Amino acid sequence: MKKLIIGVDVGGTNIKLGLLNSSGKIISRSRLITVTFSRDQHRLIKALCDAIQALMAKNHVQRKDILGIGMGLPGPINSAEGVVKYLPNIPGWNDVPLGRIIQSKLKIPTFIDNDVNLITLGEWKFGVGRGYRNLVCMTLGTGVGGGLILDGKLYRGEGFVAGEIGHMLHSALKQKSTFGFYGYFEHFVGNRQLIANGQKIFGARDIRIQDIFAKAQQGNPRAIRFWEEIGEHIGNVLVSIINLLNPRLIIIGGGVANNFKFFHPAIKKIIQQRAMKVHGQMVKVVRSRLGDSAGLIGAYVLVKQELGLK
Amino acid sequence: MKKLIIGVDVGGTNIKLGLLNSSGKIISRSRLITVTFSRDQHRLIKALCDAIQALMAKNHVQRKDILGIGMGLPGPINSAEGVVKYLPNIPGWNDVPLGRIIQSKLKIPTFIDNDVNLITLGEWKFGVGRGYRNLVCMTLGTGVGGGLILDGKLYRGEGFVAGEIGHMLHSALKQKSTFGFYGYFEHFVGNRQLIANGQKIFGARDIRIQDIFAKAQQGNPRAIRFWEEIGEHIGNVLVSIINLLNPRLIIIGGGVANNFKFFHPAIKKIIQQRAMKVHGQMVKVVRSRLGDSAGLIGAYVLVKQELGLK
Repeated sequence: MKKLIIGVDVGGTNIKLGLLNSSGKIISRSRLITVTFSRDQHRLIKALCDAIQALMAKNHVQRKDILGIGMGLPGPINSAEGVVKYLPNIPGWNDVPLGRIIQSKLKIPTFIDNDVNLITLGEWKFGVGRGYRNLVCMTLGTGVGGGLILDGKLYRGEGFVAGEIGHMLHSALKQKSTFGFYGYFEHFVGNRQLIANGQKIFGARDIRIQDIFAKAQQGNPRAIRFWEEIGEHIGNVLVSIINLLNPRLIIIGGGVANNFKFFHPAIKKIIQQRAMKVHGQMVKVVRSRLGDSAGLIGAYVLVKQELGLK
Repeated sequence: MKKLIIGVDVGGTNIKLGLLNSSGKIISRSRLITVTFSRDQHRLIKALCDAIQALMAKNHVQRKDILGIGMGLPGPINSAEGVVKYLPNIPGWNDVPLGRIIQSKLKIPTFIDNDVNLITLGEWKFGVGRGYRNLVCMTLGTGVGGGLILDGKLYRGEGFVAGEIGHMLHSALKQKSTFGFYGYFEHFVGNRQLIANGQKIFGARDIRIQDIFAKAQQGNPRAIRFWEEIGEHIGNVLVSIINLLNPRLIIIGGGVANNFKFFHPAIKKIIQQRAMKVHGQMVKVVRSRLGDSAGLIGAYVLVKQELGLK
C-alpha cells in the first residue's frame, strides 16, 4: 500500500532528503552537497533523482510504496504547473518544468514549491502554527523569506511569488541604504549585515553569528544591544505586516531564530507601541518549532494536499 | 418577487443610500447628514431605519421586494456576526450588533461590513477590478484605507481588521514623524498632511486639495512636484505591498484619486525601480472606476454573497 512520502529541500549549498511515514514523521534522512555541481542543471537533476533512489534503496522501499515526492526550491515556483521560474542563487534555471521531469524519470507523482512555502506549510500543520487560520512565517538567514497562511490556505500570489518580506521597504534613522534612507528589509537583518555589524561592534573580522549569541549569553551588553536592535528592525517590519494582514500568529524561523530569546522582547515592545490596538493585541510572535525539518515536513503536507488527501 | 437591494454607506459626515436593481444598477439614491446626531447611537440607528423606509416609500417598494440591506461603516466590523466593534470617528459604538438590530426593526436581512471592504467588493465585481483574482484597493482621504482580494475572495483578517494600509510604517528622509523618522503611511499622504504641505508650499492658509490640483493643471511646477512627491510616498508603500502580496492590480480610490494623473507616473517609476522584477512587471496601478458609488455597489455584492446568490 502506498503511504510513504519523500521530501526534498533544495538549498543553495546542500540538499536535504527525508522519507516520511503516513503520519508525517521523518523515518530516514540523507543529505547531498550541491555546491560543486549546481551550475549544471542536468547534473543537479540527475543527482536529485539518484539521491531519491538511494534513500529508497537504503530503506528497502519501492516505487509502489511512495505516494509522492514533495520538493522545495529557493526561488519562485509555479506550483500549479511544477515549473521552476528561476533560482536567484543557482544560475541557468529558467522556466524548468522540474516537477514533470522528475516525475517522468522516477515514475512517482512529484510536486514542487518555494522552500519557504514548504516551511510555512510544515509549521502550520505540524509545528507551532497548528490550528491557526491566519499566520505569517518569516525565515531569517542570508535572505529573509516569508510564507502566508490566509483564511486557512497557503497564499501564493498572482505569480506564485508572494511573501517576499525581505524585499519590503525598510528604513532606519542612522543607516543609509539602497535607496537613500530606504532599503530592503533583508539588508538590515540578513546574515551579511549582521556579520558586518558584529565586525564593527566587536572589532573582530572573523566573528560569526553564533559568537554574538554566545556573547549575549554571557551578558555582554554590546551583544545584548546588538540583538535588541535586530528585534527593533523585525518589529518595525512586522507592524506593517500586522496592520495590513491582521494575522493571529507570526512564526520566526531560519538560523538566526536560534537567538530568538534575545531579540523577541524588542519585537514585542515595538508591536505593542506601533501596531494598531486590535491588531497588536491578537497577534503572537513565536519561534518556529520544527527547525531544520520544517521544509521536509512541509513537503509531506504539499503532497497530501495536492493529492487531495486530508 | 424579491430582487432589489438597499445599499447604505455610513461616513463620518454623511450617509449615502441607494436602491439597486437585480443587476447591481443604482436606480434611486438619497443622502443624510449624520454629523448632527451621530453621537447618539439610538438616534443614528433610528435615522438609518427612517432613511431606508423613506427610500423604499419614494420608490413604491415594499419589504417583499427587497432581498437584503448591505451597509458599510467606517471601522472594524465583524461581518460574520454583524457586529460593529467600534467606530474610530463616532464615539460610543462598542460591540453593537447593528446587523441584528436593523434586521429586527425592518424585518429585512441585513449585512454589514467595513466601508473600504465594500468599496473593494464593488470595484472588484463591477468596476476596474472585474475578473481579477488578486488585487489591493487603497482609498486616499482623511485616512488611508485598504481592501484585499486574495485568491478570488475578500480577505478580512483574523479579527476582521486587515487592510490598514494607512497604518503601515513609512519613512521619509527629510520628514520626522510619529516614531522618529518612522510614521504611519497616512501621516504622509492623508488629507491633513496634504493641506499642511500645500499651505507651506504656496503660503496660502485656506488652500484646498482641489486648488493644488487646479494649479497642477495650469502647469505650476511646485504643484506638479507636490503631486509627484505624493506619488513617491504611495509608490514606496506599494513596493512593500507588492513584494509581500504579489497582486495583479492596485486600485486607487478616495477623493485624492481625482489627482491620479499627476501622481501616477511617480508611482510607476518607484515600482519599476524598487519592486522585485517578477512582482513589478505583473502589477498594474489604476484609478478606481466607480468613484462615489463603489460603496453602494459593494453593498449589493455583499448581500448577494451572504445570501449565496451568484
